[in-house]
Amino acid sequence: MSENTLLVFGADPPPRLDRIAGRARIVLSDEQSLAELLPTADALLVWDFTSDAVRDAWPGGGPRPRWVHTASAGVDRLLCPELIDSDTVVTNARGVFEQPIAEYVAGLVVAMAKDFHGTWELQRQRRWKHRETMRLAGTLAVVVGSGPIGRAIARTLAGLGVRVELVGRTAREDDPEFGRVHGSGALSGLLPSADWVVCAAPLTEATRGMFDASTFARMKSSARFINVGRGPLVVENDLVDALLTRTIGGAALDVFESEPLTADSRIWDVPGLLVSPHMSGDTLGWRDALAEQFMDNFDRWAAGEPLLNVVDKKLGYVPVT
Amino acid sequence: MSENTLLVFGADPPPRLDRIAGRARIVLSDEQSLAELLPTADALLVWDFTSDAVRDAWPGGGPRPRWVHTASAGVDRLLCPELIDSDTVVTNARGVFEQPIAEYVAGLVVAMAKDFHGTWELQRQRRWKHRETMRLAGTLAVVVGSGPIGRAIARTLAGLGVRVELVGRTAREDDPEFGRVHGSGALSGLLPSADWVVCAAPLTEATRGMFDASTFARMKSSARFINVGRGPLVVENDLVDALLTRTIGGAALDVFESEPLTADSRIWDVPGLLVSPHMSGDTLGWRDALAEQFMDNFDRWAAGEPLLNVVDKKLGYVPVT
Repeated sequence: MSENTLLVFGADPPPRLDRIAGRARIVLSDEQSLAELLPTADALLVWDFTSDAVRDAWPGGGPRPRWVHTASAGVDRLLCPELIDSDTVVTNARGVFEQPIAEYVAGLVVAMAKDFHGTWELQRQRRWKHRETMRLAGTLAVVVGSGPIGRAIARTLAGLGVRVELVGRTAREDDPEFGRVHGSGALSGLLPSADWVVCAAPLTEATRGMFDASTFARMKSSARFINVGRGPLVVENDLVDALLTRTIGGAALDVFESEPLTADSRIWDVPGLLVSPHMSGDTLGWRDALAEQFMDNFDRWAAGEPLLNVVDKKLGYVPVT
Repeated sequence: MSENTLLVFGADPPPRLDRIAGRARIVLSDEQSLAELLPTADALLVWDFTSDAVRDAWPGGGPRPRWVHTASAGVDRLLCPELIDSDTVVTNARGVFEQPIAEYVAGLVVAMAKDFHGTWELQRQRRWKHRETMRLAGTLAVVVGSGPIGRAIARTLAGLGVRVELVGRTAREDDPEFGRVHGSGALSGLLPSADWVVCAAPLTEATRGMFDASTFARMKSSARFINVGRGPLVVENDLVDALLTRTIGGAALDVFESEPLTADSRIWDVPGLLVSPHMSGDTLGWRDALAEQFMDNFDRWAAGEPLLNVVDKKLGYVPVT
């Protein structure tokens, strides 16, 4: 085939792109050069997926890549109307983050049930203070997001004896693994019985701000909320209020409305709120796994074969088949 | 039947003993009165199982209860040669602690894999610092103790995708759940490949101090050690040395050579050591569960039926049948 141009966006290029060297001209770009280089590219690898630069540059003039692959599960920082309406195929990193994020959430659930945070604070104070903690088995988790990440979370929590209700966009009764998956309209009715509410939904116009004051008001005062999806799924001020007024029992956020949190953010020391810096899916070797996954898809693209992990641009995620 | 005397040891008597009121004369005792009251008792409920008072008082003169029930899994604080050699039946609280302890250990394993402790320390400092953490699935745990607690831990870790090798007193190849259970002699050979070494063994003369410098020297420098059994299973100074010299990657102790830890103990701030105050099995309602379990056994005892959870006093635990 004639040599294609692969444009890579990201200051830190991926490891071992040599596997495709010789089959594509590889051009590196950053926020400054992206708009100018975009018309020259046949394919675009969004390696730095924490930037809005692609979404900002895409609507400009000239030809556009026929394929965009992002090294992330979410495509919310990428999609703009012009990209959605184009013929460009978008693929994502489905498959890399599921198990690590599920482990992370399971750990958060146990850590909150057993008050590890309180125990380690007492250790810092050199205080021996026995407490009774929560038995996990038999508690109820509502997992919002029925894509691969939500499903891995549901599976892992079930392995700990937690009862799980899975909530997706649309209801179905014949899910091969979980039987019933609730539609988003059912969430409100599930909230009052949940001990854990876990958000692993994609960020779309339909889900933006879906966890707000009315959500938290319906939860038990002992219930805990966990967000490993995207920050803007949650109205952060409403969550802070729910914690300050003890409307809910606690929360853990791995994602935020604005990232990174600045040192003066009030989020850092809200009582009952555990903060982690958007790392739940990032296990040792993840960049290698992301690069391998991209190159597997590149092989398919170069051979004219169907790509894996094709995003439904209108839905904003890869539909579960 | 003629009225029996039930002696209860513990300053805080159990809840709802009224279920057996009318069928036994209930006498409460403490460390001062125990020796004097022991000859008057037909049965003894060791409600406060954190004291050595029963073991100290037992060898004295006079008749002894025909049945001793302890509201704990371990019987190491109870057994003395005179009790072991007597006809007195000893029963324990098998069944109450397994699942909570398994949840606790699973939580510790995830927390260490994902460095929750480091994340929460960074939160205190209001610092956003992304790190890559360990993927749990596929790692190897060696669980020492093939009784109900060790088995629940093994089952729960397996549910998180961890490969598990179970080590008991004697090897067997036909375990209905795990297939192979290793004998204690195999531990040394398993240590070099373990990512997690979890101690859930009973404390007996055969197991006292079984985790010492030679154990830690055989472990990987990245491996973590967890003890939810009894403190004296571990030579604490050797563990501290192994952590200080980075012979192993970290540890979590819920039990200690001497409990409670005093404020001036050096254990509190050993780098890489997570400390909790002997609470891994103690979930909300555990005292009710322990009281119910005792009263179920009391019903059997009063009816002359075989008791549940009979301890093999020579082995020092309830054998798995």
